[in-house]
Amino acid sequence: MITLATDFGQPYPAAMKGVIARRTDATAVDIGHEFRRQAPREAAFWLRFVLPEFPPAVHCAVVDPGVGTDRQALVVRAGDHALVGPDNGLLLPPARALADGDGIEVFAVRVEEPASDTFHGRDVFAPVAADCHEVGIDRLDRLPALVRTREHEQLRLPEPAVRSDGATGEVVAVDGFGNVVTNLSGDLLDGRDAVRIDGDKYPVVPSYAHAEVGTPLVTVGSHERVELAVNQGRGEEAFGVATGETVRLRW
Amino acid sequence: MITLATDFGQPYPAAMKGVIARRTDATAVDIGHEFRRQAPREAAFWLRFVLPEFPPAVHCAVVDPGVGTDRQALVVRAGDHALVGPDNGLLLPPARALADGDGIEVFAVRVEEPASDTFHGRDVFAPVAADCHEVGIDRLDRLPALVRTREHEQLRLPEPAVRSDGATGEVVAVDGFGNVVTNLSGDLLDGRDAVRIDGDKYPVVPSYAHAEVGTPLVTVGSHERVELAVNQGRGEEAFGVATGETVRLRW
Amino acid sequence: MITLATDFGQPYPAAMKGVIARRTDATAVDIGHEFRRQAPREAAFWLRFVLPEFPPAVHCAVVDPGVGTDRQALVVRAGDHALVGPDNGLLLPPARALADGDGIEVFAVRVEEPASDTFHGRDVFAPVAADCHEVGIDRLDRLPALVRTREHEQLRLPEPAVRSDGATGEVVAVDGFGNVVTNLSGDLLDGRDAVRIDGDKYPVVPSYAHAEVGTPLVTVGSHERVELAVNQGRGEEAFGVATGETVRLRW
Repeated sequence: MITLATDFGQPYPAAMKGVIARRTDATAVDIGHEFRRQAPREAAFWLRFVLPEFPPAVHCAVVDPGVGTDRQALVVRAGDHALVGPDNGLLLPPARALADGDGIEVFAVRVEEPASDTFHGRDVFAPVAADCHEVGIDRLDRLPALVRTREHEQLRLPEPAVRSDGATGEVVAVDGFGNVVTNLSGDLLDGRDAVRIDGDKYPVVPSYAHAEVGTPLVTVGSHERVELAVNQGRGEEAFGVATGETVRLRW
Repeated sequence: MITLATDFGQPYPAAMKGVIARRTDATAVDIGHEFRRQAPREAAFWLRFVLPEFPPAVHCAVVDPGVGTDRQALVVRAGDHALVGPDNGLLLPPARALADGDGIEVFAVRVEEPASDTFHGRDVFAPVAADCHEVGIDRLDRLPALVRTREHEQLRLPEPAVRSDGATGEVVAVDGFGNVVTNLSGDLLDGRDAVRIDGDKYPVVPSYAHAEVGTPLVTVGSHERVELAVNQGRGEEAFGVATGETVRLRW
Repeated sequence: MITLATDFGQPYPAAMKGVIARRTDATAVDIGHEFRRQAPREAAFWLRFVLPEFPPAVHCAVVDPGVGTDRQALVVRAGDHALVGPDNGLLLPPARALADGDGIEVFAVRVEEPASDTFHGRDVFAPVAADCHEVGIDRLDRLPALVRTREHEQLRLPEPAVRSDGATGEVVAVDGFGNVVTNLSGDLLDGRDAVRIDGDKYPVVPSYAHAEVGTPLVTVGSHERVELAVNQGRGEEAFGVATGETVRLRW
C-alpha cells in the first residue's frame, strides 16, 4: 500500500498515481490533496494524526514550497512504515508517531536530473515511493539511491505552556467543519465544566451536540487535543482564530 | 468492497481507510466526503441515488450531528448490502432502495467505550464496517456486537403534493453544477412543453443542451425527479431556491 | 485499470464506479472530478498531461455540455490505451499523446436508449468503459456496439505565435495553486533571465522558490510550457489573466 498526501488539488496527484501504477501493483490510497498549500507544518500535524491508523505502508507526502531548490528528498523509515517526501520537516512528526518510541532512520535520495524543476511529486517522490514498496520497507538500504543521513531539517510541532491558572497554546489546524484544533492536551480539561478564553466563558463538553446548536464550546477532539468548536457551526469564525495563532485558556 | 460516504472533507476519511485496511483487504471506495455538513436528509437522498448502482457491498455512511451523544450506531441489512452509520435516519432511504421491496433488518451496535467522543467514523463505524465485511453480509447475526432492534429513527424523504393544475414539492438537493433536484416525479412532466414556476414560464426539455446556453429550463434528472437547471449555468441562482425550500409547478 | 475524469464534483462519479464495479474487477482510479465545468478543452489539456503517466488502461473522461443531444459517444484506441467519452474533442489531445506518433482508431458507440438523458457518465460511458476493459484494449473491434468511424469532432489545442521579439500564446489552464499555464513552449525561455508582459519585467527562474516569496515570476512548468506564477502566491491574481485569455511575452 502506498498512501498519497499533497497540497496539489487536482489533477497533479493523478500523474503520481500513474507513475506508481507503472512501477508497482501496490494499492494507492489518497490521504487527501487539499492540505493547506505551502504549509508543511499543518500537514505534518494531520499526517501524525492519520498515518498511525494504517497498516505498514509507504507514505508519499508532498507539501513542498522548496521544490526545484537544493532541498533534499528524504525517505524515513519508522517502524514498519516508510515516508517519502521533501526535506522540510514534514515527515518527522508522523515518522515519530509511527515509530512509537523506537528510532527512525533517515535516508537522503540521490536524485538523477529530474524531468522537471516544478513537479517532484511526479518526477522524484512517486518513483521513490514505488521503489521503496517494491524493495520492501525492511530492505530500504538495498536501494542504491538511498544514502543514510543525519543532515536534515527538523520540525517539532509547537509545545504549549501550562500554568496553574491556565494554558497558552497554538492553533495547529482548522478542519473542514471549522473546528479549531490546538496543541493543548485534552487532559487539561479533565474535571472542568468551563474555561475562559479572552475573558469569555465557554462550556467544556464531551462532544459537539452536548451544546445547543450554534453555541461555541470547548471539547477534546479525536486528536486528544483541546478543540474550539460550535455545534453545527464554525468554530474558527466564533472564536476568531486561524492556524498559527495563539489561544489562551484560563481556568 | 466497502464504500465510504461522509461530510468530513479531509483528512478524516483517510483515518477511516487506515482503520479498515488494518482489518480487511476489502477495496475501499469513496462515494464522497463533501456531502453537505450536518445534513443527513440530503445525504440520504444522494445515497439512495448512488448506492443501488453498486454490487453487494458494505456501505459506511457518516453524516452525524449527534456524534458523542447517546444516539445509537446502526447496521442495516438490505438485500445483499449492509449499511453502517449513525441512527439518525440517514441509512433508511438508501436501505429501502437497496432492499428493492424486500424487508430490511436493523441491528444496533453494542459499542465499547470508543477512543473519542467526536470521531466515531474512525472509532465506531469504520471498525464495524470492516467486521461486517469480514463476517459476510448474510451472516451479520454472528457478530456479537450486533443486536437486532426495532427501535430506531425514521427518515422518510418528503412526499410532494400533486393536483390537477400543478404540483408542490421540495428541493432535496443542489448538485455541483447548481442543478436543483426536487422530490417531484419526472412523470409529472410527461407530454408537457413548459411549466410555470412563480408565474414565469420555463421550457420542459429532455436535457440541458436542448435550451440555449444560459437559459433556465426544467428537465427530468437522472434521479427521475424534476430538476430546475440552466444550460451551462447555475439553476439554484436562476431559480433562487435552496435545499429544503418549496417549489410550486403550475401547468 | 479504468481511470475516471469528469467535471461532476460529487457524488455522481460514485454512481459510475458502482456501474463499473458491477461489470468488472478492474481497479478504478480517480483522475479528478473537479475539472472546470463544461470546459472540454481545458480538461483535454490536463488529460494530455496526466494520462501518458499511466500504464495501459481504459480512460473514461466525461466533460459533456452536450449530454442528451445527438452528439456521439466515442471510444478511441491510442497505443495500448483506450479512451471513452463524448464526441466533443475532449478525447483527441490525450489520445494523440498516448499514441505517441502512431495512429489512433476512433469508434462510435451504438447506444441503446439510455436510462437518462442527463447522466451518460452512468448510463453510457461507464458501461462502455467496463466493456472495453473486459474485452481487452487490443480487441475493441469485437464489441458489437463499437463501429469504426471517421466522423467526429476535432479539437486541436491552440498553437502560439512566435516572433523574433516575443511570443503570443493563450492561457490553457490555471491550476489549484493559481499557476497560469500557457500554451507557449518552455524552450522559448532558454537562456533568458527575464521577459516582459504588458510592459512589466519578470524574472525567468527554474522553479517557484528561486524568486522571493510573494514575487511574480515566469518559469517552465512540469508540462514543459511557460507558466506565470508567484512564489507561495497566486499567479492568476498577480498577472490578472484567466483561462482562454491571451498572454504576450516580449524579449
